[in-house]
Amino acid sequence: MKASLTILYLLFATCCLMRHEAINAYQVEPQNWWVGMQHPALQIMVRQVSVANAKVSLRSYEGVKLVGVERGDSDNYAFINLHIDEHAQAGELIFDIISQHTSDVLRYPLHSRQPQSAARQGFSSKDIIYLINPDRFANGNPDNDSVAGMLEGPQPDFKGGRHGGDLQGIIDRLDYIKDMGFTQLWLTPVRENNMSEYSYHGYALTDFYKIDPRMGSNEQYRILTQAAASRGIGVIMDMVLNHSGLNHWWVKDKPTADWLNFAGEFSGTSHARQTIQDPHASEFDKKQFNDGWFVPTMPDLNQRQPLLATYLIQNAIWWVEYANLSGIRVDTYSYSDKSFLAKWTERLMNEYPNFNIVGEEWSTNPAITSYWQRGKVNQDGYTSELVSVMDFSLQASLVKALNEAESWNTGWIRVYQSIANDFLYPDTGNLLTFLDNHDMSRIFTELGQDLDKTKLAMTLLLTTRGIPQIYYGTEVLLDNTGSNDHGDIRIDFPGGFQGHKHDAVSGKGLSKAQKTMQSYVQHLAQLRKKYTALSDGELIHFSPYDGVYSYVRRAKSHSILVLLNKNQAPATVSTARYQEVLQGVKTARDLLTHSQVEVLDNIEIPKMSARVLLLKHD
Amino acid sequence: MKASLTILYLLFATCCLMRHEAINAYQVEPQNWWVGMQHPALQIMVRQVSVANAKVSLRSYEGVKLVGVERGDSDNYAFINLHIDEHAQAGELIFDIISQHTSDVLRYPLHSRQPQSAARQGFSSKDIIYLINPDRFANGNPDNDSVAGMLEGPQPDFKGGRHGGDLQGIIDRLDYIKDMGFTQLWLTPVRENNMSEYSYHGYALTDFYKIDPRMGSNEQYRILTQAAASRGIGVIMDMVLNHSGLNHWWVKDKPTADWLNFAGEFSGTSHARQTIQDPHASEFDKKQFNDGWFVPTMPDLNQRQPLLATYLIQNAIWWVEYANLSGIRVDTYSYSDKSFLAKWTERLMNEYPNFNIVGEEWSTNPAITSYWQRGKVNQDGYTSELVSVMDFSLQASLVKALNEAESWNTGWIRVYQSIANDFLYPDTGNLLTFLDNHDMSRIFTELGQDLDKTKLAMTLLLTTRGIPQIYYGTEVLLDNTGSNDHGDIRIDFPGGFQGHKHDAVSGKGLSKAQKTMQSYVQHLAQLRKKYTALSDGELIHFSPYDGVYSYVRRAKSHSILVLLNKNQAPATVSTARYQEVLQGVKTARDLLTHSQVEVLDNIEIPKMSARVLLLKHD
Repeated sequence: MKASLTILYLLFATCCLMRHEAINAYQVEPQNWWVGMQHPALQIMVRQVSVANAKVSLRSYEGVKLVGVERGDSDNYAFINLHIDEHAQAGELIFDIISQHTSDVLRYPLHSRQPQSAARQGFSSKDIIYLINPDRFANGNPDNDSVAGMLEGPQPDFKGGRHGGDLQGIIDRLDYIKDMGFTQLWLTPVRENNMSEYSYHGYALTDFYKIDPRMGSNEQYRILTQAAASRGIGVIMDMVLNHSGLNHWWVKDKPTADWLNFAGEFSGTSHARQTIQDPHASEFDKKQFNDGWFVPTMPDLNQRQPLLATYLIQNAIWWVEYANLSGIRVDTYSYSDKSFLAKWTERLMNEYPNFNIVGEEWSTNPAITSYWQRGKVNQDGYTSELVSVMDFSLQASLVKALNEAESWNTGWIRVYQSIANDFLYPDTGNLLTFLDNHDMSRIFTELGQDLDKTKLAMTLLLTTRGIPQIYYGTEVLLDNTGSNDHGDIRIDFPGGFQGHKHDAVSGKGLSKAQKTMQSYVQHLAQLRKKYTALSDGELIHFSPYDGVYSYVRRAKSHSILVLLNKNQAPATVSTARYQEVLQGVKTARDLLTHSQVEVLDNIEIPKMSARVLLLKHD
Repeated sequence: MKASLTILYLLFATCCLMRHEAINAYQVEPQNWWVGMQHPALQIMVRQVSVANAKVSLRSYEGVKLVGVERGDSDNYAFINLHIDEHAQAGELIFDIISQHTSDVLRYPLHSRQPQSAARQGFSSKDIIYLINPDRFANGNPDNDSVAGMLEGPQPDFKGGRHGGDLQGIIDRLDYIKDMGFTQLWLTPVRENNMSEYSYHGYALTDFYKIDPRMGSNEQYRILTQAAASRGIGVIMDMVLNHSGLNHWWVKDKPTADWLNFAGEFSGTSHARQTIQDPHASEFDKKQFNDGWFVPTMPDLNQRQPLLATYLIQNAIWWVEYANLSGIRVDTYSYSDKSFLAKWTERLMNEYPNFNIVGEEWSTNPAITSYWQRGKVNQDGYTSELVSVMDFSLQASLVKALNEAESWNTGWIRVYQSIANDFLYPDTGNLLTFLDNHDMSRIFTELGQDLDKTKLAMTLLLTTRGIPQIYYGTEVLLDNTGSNDHGDIRIDFPGGFQGHKHDAVSGKGLSKAQKTMQSYVQHLAQLRKKYTALSDGELIHFSPYDGVYSYVRRAKSHSILVLLNKNQAPATVSTARYQEVLQGVKTARDLLTHSQVEVLDNIEIPKMSARVLLLKHD
C-alpha cells in the first residue's frame, strides 16, 4: 500500500511560514529556527501519535544535515537532530516522515537573523528596570479578558483572580514609562498559563512557546518589544526553568519517564537552597530541595534529562531571537539542576556575548547569591555563567536600616556591611538592586508609609552600584499596609483599569505625597542617566556616622557625593573624612535642589533627607 | 685612647647562657637563637645608649655570617643581621661593639633544637582546648602576688584587679584538666603587663620576651609546658601582634619614628573589620580600622615597619622553640597589617609545617572569617597562611537556636545554616568552635541557666566538626547572670583561691547540676577521644525537622548519629531520611546512656536532650 502524502500545518506557525492545508496536526517546537547562529546544532521536537516509530528523512538542503532522530519513552515524540553550518541560507527544510500507513511532509522554516542580533546589548547598570505584573498593570484590551479554551476568566474583585491587564495596556503606557526614565521592562511571565485558578501570576506555564491569549499574542509581544525599543526601552523576559503548570501537555504525555521530578508526583521542595553549596548537606536534603515541587500545581522539571535540557535552552534562545529581548530574568534560579543551569546560561551567552541574564536566588546571604555569578571562583569548583544576581541582602538591610535606631550594629551599618560584602561578587555592577518586588511587601508599607524614608531608600537605590529595579506603582507609593497577601502586593496600577478614579499616568487623583514621590523618582532617574558616575562609577563608601551614611560615585570626568541623613534633625558632617575624594574641592552643586554648595569644613544635611552633590574639580 | 674592653650581661639570659660580670647593660632580643632552623636569617636587636653609632663585628664562627647592621631613627638601637647556614653548630657568637669611647664584647648563644622540634604536631580537631584566664584560675604561689617593680598588686575583691592566679595554680591542676579529657591549654597572655591597672587580662604587653613575674617566670612557663606534655596536653600561647602596653619601653624610645601607628598618639580603631575585604572601603575607614588603637593604654603597632615585623616574627618563633608550644592563638588578628600577617604566619608554618595557629576574627560573617584561612581563594588575590579561625558564627547561632522557638527561619535552622556556610572555608576541620570565651557572656548565662539547654549546646560542640574549645569553669556551669562585666565573665575558678568553699577539682560544694554538667563534659570528651568519627569524621547533617537537628559523623570504621531534641516533649524521628547513612543498620548503641537501640522506622529522643548513637554496621 502506498503511503499517502500529506502536507503539514505547523502549530503556532510564525508569520513567515506558508500555511498549507492541515491534514495531520503535528506539533513542532521550536516552530522555526534561524541560520547564522553560533551553535550549529538544532533539536526539533515533533509531537504526533506514534511519530516515534516513523522514519524521518531530510530532503537535501545546502549546509543542513540530519544528524539523527532520538526518541523518548513515549511513542508520540521524535527529536530530530540537525547540524546547521555557517553557510546555510534561510529557507524551508522539508522532512519526510514515513510510518507504516502514512507518509507526511514537514516543512520547517529557517529564518535570517536581524542584523546585530548576536551583538545585542543586554540590560546593565546604565538602565533602570521597571517590573510589571501585566495582569495588574493595565487592561488595554477588554476583549481578551475571556478567551475560549482558557480555563480562567476575569475576576477583577478577587485578589487571587485575573484582573484583565494585558500587553496592550503596557504598550499604551510606554510613553509614561519612558518619561519616568525607566529603560527596561521586566514583565512577570506572560506566556500561556492555562490553569483553572491563580493563573494571573504566570509562573505555571502550559505552553513555553506561546503568549497567553488573555495577555495578547506572540505577535503582539513582538510589537511591544518593538514599540519599547523605539523609545529606548528594552524588554526582559521572565523565564521559568524549574517547573511548568500542571496542565502542560507534557504532564499527561511525558516525553520520557524522567521528564518530571519525583516521578511526576508532588513532593514539596524544602526551599533549603544552601544544600547546593553546603559541603555537609545530606543527599536526602539536596534531592528534596532540588527535585521537590514548589506547589502541587507546578510539576518540577528534571533538567538532567538531556532532551528537556535542550528544549529549555532552545526555547530561551528562540524568544531572544524572535522577540528581540534585551535580557532574561530566571525564576527560582537555584531550584533547577546546577549543571544544567551552567549549560543553559553558557549557551545563551555564547549566542549573545553582551546579553544579560539575572537569576533569582532569594537569599540574604551574599555568599550564596555570589556563588551563582559568572566569574566566581567557588571552593567546590562550580563554574557559573549567570551574569547577574539579585541583591536581596541590600533590600533587607535597607528596610532594617531605615526602621531601626542607629547603633554600632543597627541602622545604616546594615547597609554599609551589606555593600561591604561586595568582595564576594566578581561583578558588583551586575547586581540587580531593588526596594521591593512582586513577591514581597511594598517598600512604602515596610517603611511605615513614611514618605521621607521612602525617598531616602529610593535615593540609595538610584545612586549606588548595581542595576536598579523599580516595582510598578512604587513610584506612586502603592502599598499593602495591613496585608501581605500577594493580591495586595500586586494591586492594580492606578488608572490601568475601568472605573479607576486615580491615574498614575495623568496624575488624576494622586495625593500630594504620591506626586512628590513620582517626581522624585523621575528626577533621580534623570540624574542617573545624565551622570555616568551614578550608573557606572566607582563606589567609595564611608562608615555610617551619627545617622548619616555617605558615599562617592566616581567617574573619570566627575564625582558625586551622596549623603543620607536619617536623623529627625539636621546633620552636620565634617569634610575631613572625605579628603581622599574631595581632593581640594571647595564648591559643589546639589543635584536635588539645584543649589550651589560651599564645601568647607562641614556639610549640612536637612533632617530625614539626602544630598546628592556634584563635586566640582577646578 | 684605648677603648675599654667589657663583657656583657645579657638581659633575660636563658639558662644556658654563662653569666659574666655586668659592666654595661645591653638589651638583646631575642636573647638566644637556635641552629638548624629552616630560615637562615636572624636579626638581633641590641638596645643601648648610642649603640646605633657603634661599629659591630662578628668574630669568626663556622656557618654564621654578619650580613650587616641596620639602625632606626633612635640612636639606641642596632639591628644585627646574621645569616646562619645549615652547617652552623650550637655555641656562642662573639660580637665586638666598638664606639668612640668603648669597646664591648657581646656573647650570643646559639642553641641546639630539641629533636623533632620542626615536626611538632599543632593542636587539631583531635583535641579539646581548655581556655584559662590564668589570673582567675588558681593562685598556686601567693608569694608572687606582689612583685617589686610591678606597678599593680593584688586586689582579689575588685573585678578589674589582679586576683593572684598564676602558672603554679595551673600546674597544680593539670591532673584535673587531663581527667576532664582536655588536651590543649590556651592561656590568655601571661607575658609581662607592667601596667598600673587592669593588667590581669594580659593583652597590654610591656615585654614580649618575659613571663610576667606575678604569673611565674620564663623557666616556670617551660616547666608548665613540660608537665602538660607529660600528660598529653599541649600549650597554646596567646600572642598579641596588634599592640603593646603603653608602658612598653619602645613607646618612650621608639626604634623608628613609624614604630607606632597614628604617630604614637591615640586614635581609636573603628572595629570595622570588613574594610579589609570591602572593595568600596574608603582609605579613611581602612586606616581608622587598621591603624586605630584599641584603647589609649595599648599603642597600635605598625607592622609595615620591617624591623618591627621581623621582631614579631622572631619573637613568636622564639617562644615556640623555647617553650615547646603546640600552637598559637593570635589576638585581634585582622587588626594587624595583612601583608605582615601573611608573612608572619608563613614564617611560622615554614618552620613548623604541622603546627597550628588560630586567629581571632570576631565576626559572625563566615565570608569575612574564611578570608583569613589558609587555602582560601580570595577575590582580591590575598593569600593567607593562617591555619585556623574561630567560628563565631556557630557560637552566636547556637545561642539563638536554643533560645528561640522553632520556625522556618528561627531555632535550629540557624545552626544548620551556619554550618552550611562551611563551603566558604577551605578547611572546616580547622575551625575553632566554642560556646563562650573570655570576652563574652558565659553559655550558662546566655541559655538562661538552663542545664538541659547547656548540655545540648555542649553535645553539639563536642560532636560536630572543628576544634572544640571550652572556657574554664563552663564545665561546672560558671555564670555571669545579671552582669556582662568582664570581671564577672572571668570569675574565679572554684577552689582556685584561698577561702573558696567550692572546689571544682575535688567536687566539694558543687551543686548537683554542676556535678551533672562536669560529668557530662567529661563523658563527651571521652567519646570524642575514643571515636575518631566525632573528631575527624565526615559530617553529614540534615535539615532541622520538628525541633530536632541531626547529623552523622562518619569515619571509615564507624558512624555516629547525633540527634538533638530541643522540644519540651519527646520527639520521634523517622529513619527514612537517614537511609543514606544508615545503610540497613538495625541496631545502635546510645553512647550517652550505654543502652542498645533498635533502629527501626523511628527513633525516640527524650525531651530537651541528645542521643548519640553508634551505628552498628553488620
